[in-house]
Amino acid sequence: MTRRHEEIADELRRAIADGGYPVGAALPSESELAATHGVSRGTLRQAFGTLQAEGLIGSRQGARRVVLAATPSQSFTELRSFAQWARSGGRTPGGRVLSSHRAPATEAEAAQLQLTPGDEVLHILRIRTLDGEPVLLERTVYAGWTAEAVERLPDDCESVTQSLYEAVGLVMSHGEHHLDAVAAGTVDARELAVRRGSPLLRVRRTTTTTEGRPVETSDDRYRPGTVVFTVRNSVQANPLARTAPTRTSP
Amino acid sequence: MTRRHEEIADELRRAIADGGYPVGAALPSESELAATHGVSRGTLRQAFGTLQAEGLIGSRQGARRVVLAATPSQSFTELRSFAQWARSGGRTPGGRVLSSHRAPATEAEAAQLQLTPGDEVLHILRIRTLDGEPVLLERTVYAGWTAEAVERLPDDCESVTQSLYEAVGLVMSHGEHHLDAVAAGTVDARELAVRRGSPLLRVRRTTTTTEGRPVETSDDRYRPGTVVFTVRNSVQANPLARTAPTRTSP
Repeated sequence: MTRRHEEIADELRRAIADGGYPVGAALPSESELAATHGVSRGTLRQAFGTLQAEGLIGSRQGARRVVLAATPSQSFTELRSFAQWARSGGRTPGGRVLSSHRAPATEAEAAQLQLTPGDEVLHILRIRTLDGEPVLLERTVYAGWTAEAVERLPDDCESVTQSLYEAVGLVMSHGEHHLDAVAAGTVDARELAVRRGSPLLRVRRTTTTTEGRPVETSDDRYRPGTVVFTVRNSVQANPLARTAPTRTSP
Repeated sequence: MTRRHEEIADELRRAIADGGYPVGAALPSESELAATHGVSRGTLRQAFGTLQAEGLIGSRQGARRVVLAATPSQSFTELRSFAQWARSGGRTPGGRVLSSHRAPATEAEAAQLQLTPGDEVLHILRIRTLDGEPVLLERTVYAGWTAEAVERLPDDCESVTQSLYEAVGLVMSHGEHHLDAVAAGTVDARELAVRRGSPLLRVRRTTTTTEGRPVETSDDRYRPGTVVFTVRNSVQANPLARTAPTRTSP
């Protein structure tokens, strides 16, 4: 069942996307909107919180909420799932496992996956394609408890997210992403069909379940010119951090 | 005056940072926390919304909020202000304007800054240093209405954010960031002291006032190995989007 504040957030999101509330305009007051939608101000504020987190609206003390953007960021699932993202843009996703092996977790891997060093993990090297062209090289380490389910996936599995959900009911629901740029190494260059040293956008990410249990940690490298990552932030909600790199960071 | 839900968010943030609520643990129920802090559940949920947007807690229907991370992402101001960010890490920030000139806004610049093509804008090329080493090359375009204030800043102005606030009361409060990787061009290579073609993390950002009025749009390029950007997301709040690059995107 959808909760009431989620329905209100949906309605407001649609009104913003349709231009009913254009970018730069102030929304009606809390009491007006609460009356229009027949909900309490508490429920309305929960809906505002969702839209604020999506970067659609901003607020400041004593003033009405202002529309900042017409379209929300992608859903978590669409960001997590390469296949779903590709299809939403009308492209055909593909994928192929280049190598797969189990190994004892190093200290760094154990820390990222909340395991004990030496616990078994599964390493997968996977290439992702859009309309047949290589776009993304993933070096993923899965926690041992997911290894069997991941190994059973077909080599050309299009959506790991969807397959793991169907196979073992695994729902990934939180992520942490570290973005920087690196020069393409030998393997990167060969698999992404670029020259060695080409600038690659690197996203190191860890995904966890609803309970906060880490499922996977990955080093993803994108071929130049194929992908841009976008983040919106504000004084009320800033999901973005800039840090100096450390040797122990994932 | 700080609003009550902000105070509650502060208290919870501190309790999480201190380990009072460790990562992976569930928070007490809404009614318990509301009673402890002497606030309504509506106020408490607003505080939850803030912590959720910061990636500190997650929730799912019918279950208690779970602690996902011990430290919040940086504040908006710390992310926006190179100087403040540098000092928070114990480094000494520096900066120097390499070139400055006014010009009519191109169509793309006008779209990004909500101006009419031909309106005057100010172009600034600025190098930023940490402990004397070049780290970041900024190509910033300021809306004409800020030009005089920006031009009056000293060439080695350490904090543009702080200076603009002091000079004209300008408060930047929303941002949009597009991250990708590019090869260093001739100017990049010279100013950042790297070889041409080196992989640079590029952040194209637009900053707006509380009212949603764009102040500046910038192409920022970071020297390899100096900076990592981090984003946390969840099924409840995903501030991160992955898109194919377009020619018209900023």
